[in-house]
Formats: sequence, structure tokens, C-alpha cells
Amino acid sequence: MIIDCHGHYTTTPPGVDAYRKNQVKMLDQDPSYIGEKGLFNVTDAEIRESIESNQLRLQKERGTDLTIFSPRASWMGHHIGNEYTSQFWTEQQNDLIRRVCDLFPQNFAPVAQLPQSPGVAPEKSVKEIIRTVEEMDFIGINLNPDPSGGFWQDSSLADRAFYPIYEKMSELDIPAMVHVSAACNDCFHTTGSHYLGADTTAFQQLMMSDVFKDFPDLKIIIPHGGGAVPYHWGRFRGLAQDNGIAPLEESVLKNIYFDTCVYHQKGIDLLLDILPAENILFASEMIGAVRGIDPETGHNFDDTKRYIDNSDKVSAEDKINIFEGNARRVFSRLQA
Amino acid sequence: MIIDCHGHYTTTPPGVDAYRKNQVKMLDQDPSYIGEKGLFNVTDAEIRESIESNQLRLQKERGTDLTIFSPRASWMGHHIGNEYTSQFWTEQQNDLIRRVCDLFPQNFAPVAQLPQSPGVAPEKSVKEIIRTVEEMDFIGINLNPDPSGGFWQDSSLADRAFYPIYEKMSELDIPAMVHVSAACNDCFHTTGSHYLGADTTAFQQLMMSDVFKDFPDLKIIIPHGGGAVPYHWGRFRGLAQDNGIAPLEESVLKNIYFDTCVYHQKGIDLLLDILPAENILFASEMIGAVRGIDPETGHNFDDTKRYIDNSDKVSAEDKINIFEGNARRVFSRLQA
Repeated sequence: MIIDCHGHYTTTPPGVDAYRKNQVKMLDQDPSYIGEKGLFNVTDAEIRESIESNQLRLQKERGTDLTIFSPRASWMGHHIGNEYTSQFWTEQQNDLIRRVCDLFPQNFAPVAQLPQSPGVAPEKSVKEIIRTVEEMDFIGINLNPDPSGGFWQDSSLADRAFYPIYEKMSELDIPAMVHVSAACNDCFHTTGSHYLGADTTAFQQLMMSDVFKDFPDLKIIIPHGGGAVPYHWGRFRGLAQDNGIAPLEESVLKNIYFDTCVYHQKGIDLLLDILPAENILFASEMIGAVRGIDPETGHNFDDTKRYIDNSDKVSAEDKINIFEGNARRVFSRLQA
Repeated sequence: MIIDCHGHYTTTPPGVDAYRKNQVKMLDQDPSYIGEKGLFNVTDAEIRESIESNQLRLQKERGTDLTIFSPRASWMGHHIGNEYTSQFWTEQQNDLIRRVCDLFPQNFAPVAQLPQSPGVAPEKSVKEIIRTVEEMDFIGINLNPDPSGGFWQDSSLADRAFYPIYEKMSELDIPAMVHVSAACNDCFHTTGSHYLGADTTAFQQLMMSDVFKDFPDLKIIIPHGGGAVPYHWGRFRGLAQDNGIAPLEESVLKNIYFDTCVYHQKGIDLLLDILPAENILFASEMIGAVRGIDPETGHNFDDTKRYIDNSDKVSAEDKINIFEGNARRVFSRLQA
């Protein structure tokens, strides 16, 4: 079985966009606008169509089985509006993910977005974790390390402000994928420099912190192959040593996992060569940041299964763990 | 001959720190403080001692010949003070680099920091380019893409605000190394996530821009092995294709160069394997971000010459170009 641990619902029916556009319109008129949870005007038939013609089709074409599925990351838009509009939007988006997974229970498992908002205590997101995980059987969360959308004006993940979330994660034994949303800062490109920079930043924040001492069972997934981290593994090993931090194998690799959203063979080879196989989870983030076909291979850039199949950097047994075993261990609430 | 294109004067005598501390003290009392250029209380004997026991010693030990040398990057501190204090500090720091290179003309060649300041037009830095390059024989500049020190509140490098600098660079045929300074944002670690994120960000800003169409001869060096870029070369190739940008070989590799400040063998192997050899310049950034000895090799993490010597990813001829030829081409004002 092949589990893709990183998929977003990027092909939502038009009722989703309409809901959000209305929120944004109301917020433009009045930044203190609250509104109500309301409704997504989306039918089951629309969901079926949007999934069958896209993610489900690609699962079949590429030979993967199950996608761990969450709301579209770039649309989380935590920098938009306020804690109330973020709460309503988030609840709707998570409810929609639940509907997808109910319609295709063999092919998708749900992960929640959180109702983060700039300047609002991360603690306030705990109730959405309880709602989605305890009441709706979600198996993980996405955690945004920069709700300000590229201005980095909120707390570091090292800060105790995040501890209520880590406590709940530990209690429920769920992992968080650290994932920013769209950049509203013109200096950054959302799915390029912002995503990759945030991945590297999250790793460094946690590495320099006491978080894993205080939460020894915490499980964090750094997406997009860990940003710049594996390529600069020597720099991070050296920085750890210079700062009196234990070797990374002891200080972070008991808690941090990397996905395989690296879109070329040599990059995947490096990832598999540098990190222990037990810290790597298969992922593609299809249909996402890069949608084209690589003219050098004739296959989609984001068809990452091929790179792992073709790599000689790990054993066949390790590949089985990267494709399935590690995801089952990290997402312990995933049902057989 | 082996040219290290990325060295900073990180071992300055105490008079440098004293000058800056006084500026900062005065600015703490009055943010509109201007002061005057004043003097660094630093003797030639102190400079000799600080260089001979550090950078010059390591050049000899490691078998390199010439370091392209600029003021300490993390001390540029463009976010501190205002355009006037930044101007005076910058002039002093550049004057000091000139003194180093006059004392050791066979071993060091000068690159200038710029007097950037948050919210101040980059155009105002042109006169320091004229002073250092035209009047003091500097051969390049360091350009900070985020004078706000991790809040990314100024213009992107794609913005026309930077065009006066690009015009002067083109006219003088000098390259710029894009290099941030210290992060004053707690979300970032200066020499880890901030440096690497900025490298990736600068590459993406330029890749998505018209800068190289408007300045076809512009030469930009992305340090620290290009941040996350080579590891994610497939993502950047795919993003270029999705955005209607010509293949990276045509759209950016005629203008962008990468240094070799990657502190482990497999990272260097990836860099040499992914990028054309003509786009790679040898560099170590010693004595810099990572000062320890790698217990896995018994050598300094930042002794990057060893990784290139040991790599089988490029030919002996390519290595000569990486060690010398490319630097001579890019830093065309470097005298034989």
C-alpha cells in the first residue's frame, strides 16, 4: 500500500471560492466583520466529480492508494480577516474534507487546518483540534508557523505560546505538518521561496528550542523535503554542535519527519541519502505547486513516486517503510 | 591559484566593535542620532595580527591563495539606526577592508558593504559604490535583499527601486553577492534559516522578474550554495515552466552564480551535479557561520575545498574553473 502523506484539496467546487470571496468582500468593507459559519454551497456530486477527475484519477495513474488530505494550504489565508472569520472558514474547510473522506473512505484520510490568525494566541486553535480529531476522526493537523503570511510577526514555534497545541497533539498522538499559507508579502513567492523558507525556518526554530525536551513524543512533519535542510545538513549539524545541542539524530530526528515533495531525481536521491529512512514519509502534494510535465523525463514534476522507485539510495525494505510503514507509525490514528 | 570568493572580516580588532557600540548607544538614546564618520581606533599592527592568526593562517593550512573579502555580513546591521549612521558605519567598514587588502595585497581583494537602511531608496547606495569601486578599487559589492533584518518590509530585488544599483553595477562590470545581515526577528536564526531563506528568496525574486532582460550583463552571486535552490531545482524548473518563463539555463544562468558554502560532501556533490560548472564559484565563508570540526571527517565543516577536491561530479578542468577561472570572469576587476 502506498500512502501519500501530503495532499490538499486544491480542486474544490466553486461554492468554496464563493464563500471565501464573500467573506473577503465583507472584510474589505469592515475589517471587524464577523459574520457566521453559514454554508458552503457544494453538493456531493460536485465533490465526487472534482475528486474523481483529479486526485483519484492521479492516484490510479501513478499507482498510489491513499492520500492524507487537508484543505488547500495556500487558501488557509490566516492573514486574512480576524479570528472569527478564520474560525468559520476553517470549520467549513475541515467539514468539507470530512465529506471528501466519507465519500472516498478507501482513498483519503482527513487532516485539519487550524483557525490561526495574526496576533491571536495559538491556544485558541485547540478547540478546532478537539472538534476535528476527537469528534470527526481527523488524524493530524497542519500548523502554520507564520500566520502573518510572510512578515513573520508572530511567535516562533519555539515559543511557549504554541505549547497548548503541542500538549493536545501529544495527548491525542497526532502529528502536525508545519505548513505556511499564501504569502501576502511581495518579497515572497508562495509555493517557492515562502514554502521552502518556512520549512527551513520551522526546522531551525525547533532544533534550537526545548520543544522536544518538553514534549518528547511530539511528531512534526517538515514538508517539501525539509526546505533547505537536507542539502545543508552539514551546516545544521555544525550549528547544533557550535550551540551545544546534541547531535541531530538525538535532538531532533526522534521527533521530526520529512516528506518527499522534491521534484527531481537528484534531489530525492540526496534526501534518501542524508536522512534515515525512518524519518522520511512519501508525499507528492499533487495537484499543487508544480503542475507541468518535466520535458526531461516526460512525467509530471510532482510524480514523486517515480523518483523513489528509481533511487538506489535506500533498500527495498526502506522503500516500503517510506511508502507506508512510516506514515502508519506517525499517523497512528489512521485506521487500517 | 585558488580564489575563495566569499570571506568576511569576522575577526576585527576591538576598535570596530567599540565604534559600533557607541553608535548603537547613541541611537538608543535618540533614534534620529546622526553623529559623524569619526574614526575606527584600529592600528595596522592589530589588523596584521587579526588576519595573520586567522584568515591568512587558514588560507595556508587549507591551500587557498586569495580571499575576496568584505565586511562581516552579520554586522552590516542595516536595520540598526538610520541612513546616516548606516552610511558612516559602512564607510568605516569599507575603509577597513581597504586597509586589510593594502596590507596583504596578494591574499585579499576588497568587496564593499552598502549603506542600506529600511525604507531608504537603494539608489542612495550608489555613491558608496562609486567611492569604493571607482576611487578605492573594490571589485564587487554585497547587496542586502532585506534591510529590515527578517521582516521583509522593503522592496523585492525585482523592483525598479534597485535599478539604479543594477545600472551602476553594469556600467562598472562588478558583481553583487546577495547577502542578508543579522536577523532582528526572533523567528529566524541569522546564519541558518535567515541566510538560507534569503538566498532562496533572492533567486526566486530575480527569476520571476525582468531584471535580467533589462540588465543582460548583470552578475549576481547567490551565496551558501544557493540556499534551497539546487536541492529543489526541479521545483524551480517547474515553476518557471508553469509561469511561462524560459528554461532556467536561458533565463537566469547567464546572470546568476552560486558559491560553494555547503558544509558537507553530499551537499557539494549535489551542487556540482545540478548546476553547470561555469555557474559555480569556490567559497568557504571561513571564519563564519560554522566554526567547528566535523567529527565525521575530522576537518572543519567550512573547509569546502576538501569536498570539491573529493567530488567526482565534475572534471579536473571544471574544478580549475570553479577554483579560479569563474571568479576571474565574474570579478573582472580583480587584478592578476
